[in-house]
This record gives sequence, C-alpha cells and structure tokens, in this order.
Amino acid sequence: MRLQRGKLKALVLMLSGLTTANAQADSAQQLLDVLLQNGTITQQQYTQLVDGLKTEQKDTLKAADNKVTVQRKGASMKFNSDDGGFDFQVGGRVMVDVAGFTRDNGQLGSGAELRRARLFAKGAMWDVWGYKFQYDFTGTGRGGIRDAYLQYAGLENLLGVNGHVRVGNFKEPFSLEEITSSKYITFMERALPVEVFSPSRNIGGVIQLNGEVSGAPWVAGVGMFGEGVNKVNKRKDQSYGVTSRISYAPTFGKNKFVHIGASGSWRDLQDQETTLSTRPEAHISDERLVSVDLGNAESAWKAGAELAAVWGPASFQGEYIRSFYDTVSGDAEFDGYYGYVSYFLTGESRAYDGKTGAFKRVKPMSIVGKNGGFGAWEFAARYSYIDLNDGAFNGGRERNYSFGLNWHATPNIRLMANYTYVDSDDTRLERDLDPHVFQGRLQADF
Amino acid sequence: MRLQRGKLKALVLMLSGLTTANAQADSAQQLLDVLLQNGTITQQQYTQLVDGLKTEQKDTLKAADNKVTVQRKGASMKFNSDDGGFDFQVGGRVMVDVAGFTRDNGQLGSGAELRRARLFAKGAMWDVWGYKFQYDFTGTGRGGIRDAYLQYAGLENLLGVNGHVRVGNFKEPFSLEEITSSKYITFMERALPVEVFSPSRNIGGVIQLNGEVSGAPWVAGVGMFGEGVNKVNKRKDQSYGVTSRISYAPTFGKNKFVHIGASGSWRDLQDQETTLSTRPEAHISDERLVSVDLGNAESAWKAGAELAAVWGPASFQGEYIRSFYDTVSGDAEFDGYYGYVSYFLTGESRAYDGKTGAFKRVKPMSIVGKNGGFGAWEFAARYSYIDLNDGAFNGGRERNYSFGLNWHATPNIRLMANYTYVDSDDTRLERDLDPHVFQGRLQADF
Amino acid sequence: MRLQRGKLKALVLMLSGLTTANAQADSAQQLLDVLLQNGTITQQQYTQLVDGLKTEQKDTLKAADNKVTVQRKGASMKFNSDDGGFDFQVGGRVMVDVAGFTRDNGQLGSGAELRRARLFAKGAMWDVWGYKFQYDFTGTGRGGIRDAYLQYAGLENLLGVNGHVRVGNFKEPFSLEEITSSKYITFMERALPVEVFSPSRNIGGVIQLNGEVSGAPWVAGVGMFGEGVNKVNKRKDQSYGVTSRISYAPTFGKNKFVHIGASGSWRDLQDQETTLSTRPEAHISDERLVSVDLGNAESAWKAGAELAAVWGPASFQGEYIRSFYDTVSGDAEFDGYYGYVSYFLTGESRAYDGKTGAFKRVKPMSIVGKNGGFGAWEFAARYSYIDLNDGAFNGGRERNYSFGLNWHATPNIRLMANYTYVDSDDTRLERDLDPHVFQGRLQADF
Repeated sequence: MRLQRGKLKALVLMLSGLTTANAQADSAQQLLDVLLQNGTITQQQYTQLVDGLKTEQKDTLKAADNKVTVQRKGASMKFNSDDGGFDFQVGGRVMVDVAGFTRDNGQLGSGAELRRARLFAKGAMWDVWGYKFQYDFTGTGRGGIRDAYLQYAGLENLLGVNGHVRVGNFKEPFSLEEITSSKYITFMERALPVEVFSPSRNIGGVIQLNGEVSGAPWVAGVGMFGEGVNKVNKRKDQSYGVTSRISYAPTFGKNKFVHIGASGSWRDLQDQETTLSTRPEAHISDERLVSVDLGNAESAWKAGAELAAVWGPASFQGEYIRSFYDTVSGDAEFDGYYGYVSYFLTGESRAYDGKTGAFKRVKPMSIVGKNGGFGAWEFAARYSYIDLNDGAFNGGRERNYSFGLNWHATPNIRLMANYTYVDSDDTRLERDLDPHVFQGRLQADF
Repeated sequence: MRLQRGKLKALVLMLSGLTTANAQADSAQQLLDVLLQNGTITQQQYTQLVDGLKTEQKDTLKAADNKVTVQRKGASMKFNSDDGGFDFQVGGRVMVDVAGFTRDNGQLGSGAELRRARLFAKGAMWDVWGYKFQYDFTGTGRGGIRDAYLQYAGLENLLGVNGHVRVGNFKEPFSLEEITSSKYITFMERALPVEVFSPSRNIGGVIQLNGEVSGAPWVAGVGMFGEGVNKVNKRKDQSYGVTSRISYAPTFGKNKFVHIGASGSWRDLQDQETTLSTRPEAHISDERLVSVDLGNAESAWKAGAELAAVWGPASFQGEYIRSFYDTVSGDAEFDGYYGYVSYFLTGESRAYDGKTGAFKRVKPMSIVGKNGGFGAWEFAARYSYIDLNDGAFNGGRERNYSFGLNWHATPNIRLMANYTYVDSDDTRLERDLDPHVFQGRLQADF
Repeated sequence: MRLQRGKLKALVLMLSGLTTANAQADSAQQLLDVLLQNGTITQQQYTQLVDGLKTEQKDTLKAADNKVTVQRKGASMKFNSDDGGFDFQVGGRVMVDVAGFTRDNGQLGSGAELRRARLFAKGAMWDVWGYKFQYDFTGTGRGGIRDAYLQYAGLENLLGVNGHVRVGNFKEPFSLEEITSSKYITFMERALPVEVFSPSRNIGGVIQLNGEVSGAPWVAGVGMFGEGVNKVNKRKDQSYGVTSRISYAPTFGKNKFVHIGASGSWRDLQDQETTLSTRPEAHISDERLVSVDLGNAESAWKAGAELAAVWGPASFQGEYIRSFYDTVSGDAEFDGYYGYVSYFLTGESRAYDGKTGAFKRVKPMSIVGKNGGFGAWEFAARYSYIDLNDGAFNGGRERNYSFGLNWHATPNIRLMANYTYVDSDDTRLERDLDPHVFQGRLQADF
C-alpha cells in the first residue's frame, strides 16, 4: 500500500489550541516509533510516514501561524495568538443608580440614572507593545473617552525592572481611591477630597515602575500631562503639569498588609478660570453644596498621603490631600480627608494589585447562580471632609457620614446600598442644605 | 522503549472544541484497549500509556477550563465558554434611508439619512445572569444609549415559571409594534399612534414571565420606570410610572396563529411641560404635522389593545391606543389606531417570538448569494390614524395611507420601499401639508 | 470486543480548525486501512470502525456547521465561519498628538490632543455581501460616524469584472491622498488643497470596478451622494452630487511603479451658505489662516489630477485640484497643489493597494520587540499651496514647507515628527501669521 503524504494529516492534527505544533509532531513521531518497534508497521511504511509527517508539520505550522486561542477571562473573552506576543480583549461595565434625597428643598433631584456604561478594547502586540481604548457612553462626544493610550512595556530589558512608558489619555498617578477602578471602590462615589483635588485623566505621558522588596510590592510613577480630551481650548495654549505617585505595601501573612502612598502634582494653569466644587457624594444630583471660584489662576500644587490596611475580612483606608493655588486675587490653600472601615461578613478580604498600588476585584467565596451560592456581604462606614474656605475665598465646608452595604452576588455583579448624612456649611445657595441621601446601585462588568 | 508521560499528548489531544475532555480520554482509552487486546502493544506499554493518559487528561482539563467555543449566530459571532454558564455576543445594525416629499411647500427636506447605526454586546454569566448594552451612533451623547440592562433569569427555580427580573434602560412593556424590533417591523416607521403614545425606553426595573398553555405562548410583564438616559433633569425630581403588558397567542397549526395583547401605563409627570407630536411616518423630516402642547401636566394614563393574525404568507396587525392627561389647563383625552395587512409573494410567514410576544426575523427560503437565490418578497398596506384634538387642545388629526414592498435578500439584509399619502388636518403650520412621501431603506444586521 | 460507535470520536476528532471534516475522515480511514492491511485489526473490527467512522463524520460535520475559526490579522482578530461565506473583524486606531507653534501671536494654541480614536466592525455575509461600521470617538454624536455602509461584491458574476456596489456613508471617490487612509498618509495631516477641496465622506451609493492590464492595476468608480451624517438640515432639501475617480498604475518590476489618476465632482449646492477654509496642516489649532465665504452657492465643479511614483525606498506623490463655484455673487475659481518626496533609510518601499488605487500599510523589515529589531525609518519633504483669492473673493493664499520623520516601530505602531513653515497671505486675521509648527504623533492601529 502506498502512503501519500496528505494521508497523515490525522496524526499531525492531533493538535488543538492547547499545545504547540512541535509537541504534536513529537507525539506523532513517538506513536510511529512504538508501532515500528512492535512490528506493527514495516521500516518502509515508517520511513514514508516520517517523511510525510515532516512535510505535514511544516504545512501545519504555516497554517497555524495566525491561529488564535479564545479563553474566558472573568466574564469577558480574551484572544491570544498561538504564535505569541498578541492578545486582545473586549469588555465593559454597566452601573444603574437610583437616589432619593430628603430635606433638600426640592433642589437635588431624586430619580434614576445610568451612572456608567463603558466598553473597552485592549491588547498587546509583539509582546512589549500594549494599547487600551475605553469609552463611557454616558458621556457626551469626546467627553466620553476614558482610557485611550499606547504603552511600551519592555522596560525590564532596558532597566532591569518591571514597568511601562505610556502615552495618551489616562489617569494621572494621584490618590489611592482615584487609581482604584470605579468597579472596585467601596462606596458608590469617591470621597469629597478625592473628587475635588485629584486630576483624574488627561493627555500625557508617564513612566511607571514596579517591583517587590522581600515580597512587599512597590510602585513609582511620574508623568507630564496637558489637558484632557474634552478640555482643549483650541485657540489658547493649554495648561500642563507634572504628577507623581509612589506606594509601598509591607505584608504580614495571608491577606494581611499595610499600604502607604504619597502623591504630588504641580500644574501651570496658564491663567485659566479655575473653580473647585463637588457633588454631595451622590452623582445623580448636579447641585454642588461646596464650590469656590478662584478666578484666573497661575499655578497649583497638590500633595496627598495614603494609608490602608487589610486584616482578613476587616480593612481601613484613608487619605489626606492639601492644595495650594496661586491666583490673581492672591494665594489660596484648601484641604480635605476621609477615612473608612469595611468588613466582610462572609469572610472575604479586599484584594490588592501590587502592579498599580491600588485595590482590585473582590472574589466572593460563594457565587449566586452556582450551587445555591449567596455571594459576599460587606459592610462599610466612612467619614469625609472638605474645606474650601481660605481668607477671601469662601467655598464652604462639608462633612459626610456614610454607611454602605455591598452584596457581591458574583465576582462581576454587585449591588450597593449607601446612606449619607450631609452636614454642609454652604455659603453659596440661599439656604444651607443638609440632606439625607439614600442611594442604590446595580453594577455588572464583563 | 520507555514511554514518557508527555509523549501521549497526541492521543489525549484528539480533542477539539467539539467534544469534552472526558469523551476524548474515553476514546483514547478505547484505542489502547483495542491495541492491547490485539497484542499490538504489551501489558507494560499499556499500563504506562494509561498512566500517562490520566496525567495528561488532568492537564488537558485544567488547560481547557476557560476555553471558549466560537460559533456563528446569524451573521455575528457568539462565544460560549466550554465550562458552561458564560456566553458573549456582539452585533449591530445599519439602516440607510433616502426620502423624497412632494407637495410639501419645500418644508419637509428631501434627502438621505443614516437612520440607525447600532452596535451591541450582550452575554450571560453563571447561567442565570445576563446583560446587554446597545448604542445607536446616530444619537448624540448618552441619547444614543438604547438597551443597557442587567437581568436575573433564574426565576424558574424560584417561581416555577420562566421569566426574568431586569434593571436598567430598556423598553417599557407597551404596544406590539413598539416591542417588535426596528429590524423586524413591516414598514420603515412605526404607525402614528405608536410613535406618539408608547413610552419606549426608560430607566427602571421589570419582572416579566412567559410560558405556554397547550402550545399557545403567553407573556406578562410589569415594571416601574423613571426617566430615560437623556431626559434627566438633575435639579428636579424625576417623573416615574408603572407600565404593564400581557399577551397570548393561540395557535392553529403550522404558521397559523392569532396574537391578542393589552398594555396599560400610568405616570406621575411631576408637573413637567408635556408635548405630544410625531413626524409623518418619515424620519428624515423634522417637521411634525400634528403636535399638541399640554403645558404642565400632573399625570398620564395610557391603554392599548393589540390584535394580529398570521395565516401562512398572509398576516394582519392592528392596535388601538387611548391616553388621558391631567394638566393644569384641564383634562385631555387623545387616541389613535392603525391596521395593516402583509403578504409574502414567495411563501414565507411573519415569525413570532413567544418569549416576548412580538414579531421576529423573517427567514427567506431562498437567499441571494447562495445558488442563485432571489430572497423573499413581501407586499404590505397600512392605514393609520391619530387624533390630537380635544376641547381647547388643538393638535390636529392625521390619516396616513401607506404601501410597502420589502425585499428580504438574505435573513440579514432587507431593502424596503414605502409610499405614504399623508392627509393631515394641521392646525399649527401656516399651510395644511398633505405630502406624498416616497422612501427607501437598505438595512443590514449582524 | 464490541466497539461502540461513540468510541471512535478520537479518530474523527483528529481535526482542528485547520482542516475540513472530509480531510479528517480521509485520514482516519487511511489509518484504518493500514491497520487492516498489516493485520493489526480484524476485518470485523475494521467494518465496525468504518461504520462508526461514517456516523461520527456526519455528527461532526453537523456540529461543525456553525463553527468559527479565529485568526490574527495584523494586530486584530478575524473570525471566519467554517461553513464559508461569513467573516467578521473588529479593530481600531488611536493617534495621540502634541503640537507647538511659534510666532503665532498666542492664537494657535499649543498643546496635546487625541487626534483619532476609532473602532470598527466589518464583515462579510453569504460571500457576496459586506458591511463596515467605523466610529471616531473624538467626534461628537453622529458626527463621529466614519464608514457606515453595506455592499454587494458579487459583480464578477454579473459583469465579469471585480468590483462592488456600496451604499451608505463613506468617502466619495476623489483625490489620492484623501482615499489613502489616515493610518498610511506620509505626513501628519493631508496637504492644503486636499483638505479644502476633497468632499470626503457623504451618504450615497457608488459602483466601483477594478482589474489589471498586464499586471498593472486600474480602478474606476462613480457615485451619487447626498450630504453627510452630520450635515443634514432636516427642514430643507439636501444638496447632492456626482463624483468619479479613475486610476492606473503601470509597474516596472519589484516595488517600482507609477500611479496616475483623475477625479471629477459636481454638486448642486441648493443655494447653501458655502465656506472654504483649512487649518495650517496642524489639526490641534482651530485657527484657519485661509478662509473664503462664498455666500449662497448654486453649484460646484471640482477636478483633480494625481501622479505618484515609487522606486524602491524612494517615492514621489503630487496632486493638482481646481474648483469652480457658481454663487449668487458671481463665479469663483480656486486651485491648489502639493508634491512630496519620501525616502526609507532602512530600505522599505511605500506599498500600493491595487484594489483602491491608493497607498497602504508599510511593513518594516525589522520590528521593535522582536529580536532586537529597530523598525523602519522614513524621511519626507513636502511643498503645498492653496489659492483662495479670485476677483472679489479674498480668502488668502498659503504656502507650506514641511519636513517629516516617521519611525515605523512595528507595522502597527508609528511615531511621526513634523516641522512646517507656514507662509500665509492672510486677509482675514488682523495680523498675518507665518508660524513655525512643530508636531509629533504616536499612532497605533489594530
């Protein structure tokens, strides 16, 4: 019987996306070895088979060159090219909020809102290059652009330490709670001082390094930034600044660690009109109970300190941020801080991402929809404070007392209930508002 | 010859995405059994091979854990995780319109338009959780958000009946033609009373159940809704309402059924300025030939009745909708109705989705691009009527006579030609407009 | 030993996404033939095995019916259905710019910008149908829609020549540099006359054919277009026009060819207010140094001539465009041209796409991130000229002298540095601006 080369495909194609073509060929070769050794096939058949095998192997490798493996990553799909160096992932998040205000004089606007509706695409090319694009469809036009960057992650070869150089639109490295994704923050909204002072996303470039010292992760980054995608005044030179953050997290056993961090940011404001203000930790209202108009400002300095600690199901997190503005009406200095505790009734721990120096996804030990699971239950309490009064600048003060209950039904689905008592020394509205705020959120990400 | 464990990958990896690792191992085991039984391999070789097999099987199962299978669903791609419970799908629709008006005094604006350009992502997690996000890029900012919801579909375990609880932005359950996707409606635009009265998408929550009584599908849903993603006035309490729809479809053989349905909706309008109006069943014009300004309205009631019937290639569909408004200038009551017949010259039937109580995709028996196929041809005629006059409220009346020809070239590609004679008693424009409207659409979805 | 049919899956499933079920069955059959011939298995076993094989083959083919193969295409993922006729691809581009102006009197606005942030989805259905949707998230609302079209590509069967009929929103066939994708143009911005005169994307329909004459590709297209997605005035008849382009590229060996082309366009402007203007080949500024207001215009004629040549690493490209406007204030005639040379220091050639008659992606011979690669380096110099003065119309003249350095780090990642000296005879601004422009871009596409 004459064996044609093409007939051996069956042996060679004992491959799937799970192994390399080389390993397959080895296995097929081995099978032929056994059959020859046992006299099942003749030496002539063996030779023909091995010849065919080699030809087929080449064809297979060529055909497999651009083959892609698809794997589930959490609730989204990740694509990896079998020839290595390329991957691609799409995903998103949806958050639906409802909020009710009392004692608000009818000004705050109870109702429902689509808080975030984002999709992203990200990937890697030739191992060391990466990109990410994320858009929030609740934004308007280019104002919905969140992350839009390219990065080079091959620094280890150059500097001997992990890290990346990133260019585009993304978060300036400032504040623990700001760097922590909205998917993972403990309360529905970030604390007052973070909302007021953190620069969030702008167009710029950063170099960020990270590593470990005896198992304790550290992160250090510094970048230069212009204005954001939506703030471009195209007939005036843009403002620009330099921002840096460092963090370190000594660990003391399983799920026991302390995080310390510090951020600093300077910006040349190019004499732009500058206003500082924030909502009462409830996004559905557009009303700001504290707000200060600085007029034309020349430059700003901001500095922040971070402390967090996790002991199994219990955790603490707090930040202090101070800012200095050089304005045409004189200098101004404002500050604020917050602190909160969280406890998982079901025994989980808040999870830490050593590569970013921020918190990441909590994975409940029991999942709703899987064998009668009931999810993870978390209770939290927060105090936050902002002071926008300084000399002639009279933006007001606000103290918020919040309680939250989070139900992590699955790693990707979270229900949140927040209550906040707002104690504001408002200087702007006709009547001082001290509302009770009741809020709920249904959040899913994939 | 010593067989190493790693060498057996070839046998184990006789898998592909089409079977489970267990079945593969069974097959490989069986092959070894045959070879041992026939004396092709020795007992020692057999034992080594089986040992290796088991080890490899474990590795394979582990590697396959997050593996995903990609399958074509219509013209889009659907991803299913091999470990079950997760799937993900992306798709979209594009509709390109052209319209010409005569006798319009130059006011209606003939031309071309991108009517819809939507993408969606949807999926399931842990079997019972689902999500969908859909955006129409012809919208502006968050106004382009269509579906954006999360749902829990595990009601069967709790209530013993199929159904879901859904939270987010989606269509209120009201009106057969409104619930039927724009991909599947018979004319280019929905009928006058549906456009004027149906609440369409808002942010809220719904519980919807469905089942069958002796093969006849029924659907019942009720939900509470605030305002839509784009209507949020953030400094005033939002309006809110309750909406419900039930439908039932007794069947009398293959492609023969009757659909009956009823919807009701109540809304606390919070004294908002309220206007009712609609285009002349032609979207490319922004002109409204009927329009009534109700001033500040306190609340609204709406009720609708639905009737449809399919006898093979022929079908009928009609609705009557009545509404009551409680305004500061007194009560107002308006109504409207439509009815149409459709006939497939090529023998297809309009298809019904028992889970939503609405019509779904027509699949032509012959497909253009496949063996000389010529698609499905459908002819339809509609009469629709709206009356926005009541006492002091003088919004006008409109009667539209429409004829349509649809060419379903493939299940996913449809060309539509519509002619409408508009007979309006306009009270708002200087001159009463009774245009002839000629429209065409090219539609593809994937 | 009784062999059950289900046990043979292993043999049948020696398939993967790389071959067809038929080929697999052939291979499995062949294996059984060998084993029978050598007496390893009995005739009875053989018959059972072959029977089982056939049953399994049917099941496998059925299961594989909607199976999809995923392959990497460049840096993005492409899905092909195994049953043929369907494919789907997603991808995108991100461009981050920084620009500095000197001698600009502070009017041009130095800073950073996200120049483009696009995602696309495209695919084919039943072989002959195709669609593409592309959105630029730096746009506003429907203004961000780029390509949104459907096409029928089965013309070869009808006309005996390759080509397509396309309907939707896409580029009118006019100008070599306009048709060349922004991913592949040599300078950061297209030349002055292309920016001013080319109609770019509008809603319409086109028929385009292409072929080869003794290895030299030609393209010919003609289409009719209304206005673009964002320009629709919905209470006035739209303007419309006819545009055509033909090109031909005689070749003289490897990477040696000449491209010649001509475009023409006529448009009924419907007495719309018409303005011609352009930025100084720097997008980050909103200032126009040349600008002419034509008032209400009745119609416009445009004609363009193209010449390009590639000799290995060196290339030339140039265009001349002339336009005629019929306005209520009389006729007006304007023109402009540009020419540039480019040279790859690393030996690559500019690549040509014979199907569109435009330039396409340069693939560097050495890739950064792969074995110490250093990418491709390209130097270019351009002169461009626009004259918007004619009789009473005084829009000004501009001459730009540009130098560019492009670093193609990988086929998908490009860094660009551009310097332009602007020599404008501005008649509109108070002071004549002749700035030096320094620009940089980081570009990635996937």
